[in-house]
Amino acid sequence: MKNKNVSMAVIRRLPKYYRYLSELLENDIKRISSKELSKLTDFTASQIRQDLNNFGGFGQQGYGYNVEDLQRELGKILGLDKTYRAVLIGAGNLGQAIANYRGFSDSGFEILGIFDKNPKVTGKKLRDVEVKAMEDMGDFIKENDIEIGIICTPKEGSQEIADTLVESGVTGIWNFAPADLKVPENITVEDVHLNESLFTLSYLLKEKK
Amino acid sequence: MKNKNVSMAVIRRLPKYYRYLSELLENDIKRISSKELSKLTDFTASQIRQDLNNFGGFGQQGYGYNVEDLQRELGKILGLDKTYRAVLIGAGNLGQAIANYRGFSDSGFEILGIFDKNPKVTGKKLRDVEVKAMEDMGDFIKENDIEIGIICTPKEGSQEIADTLVESGVTGIWNFAPADLKVPENITVEDVHLNESLFTLSYLLKEKK
Repeated sequence: MKNKNVSMAVIRRLPKYYRYLSELLENDIKRISSKELSKLTDFTASQIRQDLNNFGGFGQQGYGYNVEDLQRELGKILGLDKTYRAVLIGAGNLGQAIANYRGFSDSGFEILGIFDKNPKVTGKKLRDVEVKAMEDMGDFIKENDIEIGIICTPKEGSQEIADTLVESGVTGIWNFAPADLKVPENITVEDVHLNESLFTLSYLLKEKK
Repeated sequence: MKNKNVSMAVIRRLPKYYRYLSELLENDIKRISSKELSKLTDFTASQIRQDLNNFGGFGQQGYGYNVEDLQRELGKILGLDKTYRAVLIGAGNLGQAIANYRGFSDSGFEILGIFDKNPKVTGKKLRDVEVKAMEDMGDFIKENDIEIGIICTPKEGSQEIADTLVESGVTGIWNFAPADLKVPENITVEDVHLNESLFTLSYLLKEKK
């Protein structure tokens, strides 16, 4: 079921719910009410019920939610019931951190290729994946049905990398470069702008003094 | 001037404005109108003017904004005209990436201490800073007037790390652990939840199919 009217505010809460439900599942909790979920998440019980109602009738009056069922359904809603084939660009510290982050492969995201423009880095291995030259990326993406490109480079050159990713057939970009990438409308870009996060922290620290 | 009524939505746009203005400054652009800024940022000219009006009268009718002045003022608003003394906890791949990210030291954030619970890692150096044992962190924070703690550990143990940071006198936490840290009201926490960002991407990719 397509949910074109769900706001980004709701969408961004879903992974949090998924995280909490996964923890409850790990701890063998069988059921939970929206009130109890509210205490865990700091979202109101009413917000939680409203958010989840966008996607189906999961809870039951007087019972609450079945943890296993809800966690599984949220996983499907988040697209986590499939695997995603990805390439990573930029084998510096951040790229290495992302390539090595086990939490992603656990959730079905496979980094099948890593690319860097620095000849000193190509040929090295990150978690069994050999770093290749940028020139090889376009063909690699087409030959391996790559869906996601993870950009871990500086701002310089990031737009050109995005252009190559899109031309080669990638549909989603996870972008760590401090740039606003221009892409066609059918391409999804999710930004992680670390500088902006840090500057938000400094703003809030200043305001509290 | 304290701005207690500025919403987080506005606050999170400020670092983007700062980034764009810094780029304009690098490119020797002297002035810019809200309309031109709107084309660069994808925010409407009216939104930009409203956002900036929260903090003072920067622009002039018919002239627009002076790039250098506005960039400098935004820098002050974001608290970037001072330095921040930080410690980092968790010297794994992500911690190393953050410790090595030059963009932060360029903006006045100094990582003075790095701590890890793994004895195999303590004693190593990340960018001239020696990794110390967790037991040394409390005293180090007090002796060095540390304001910010950067948590780059897994979820397990992150709350205890936050507790120690707060007890020792830290007022801001930049948190990469996939956890919602409980802290006193006067402590600021800024989360970077990479899993949640990635799951948002998978949700959006699924919706576009």
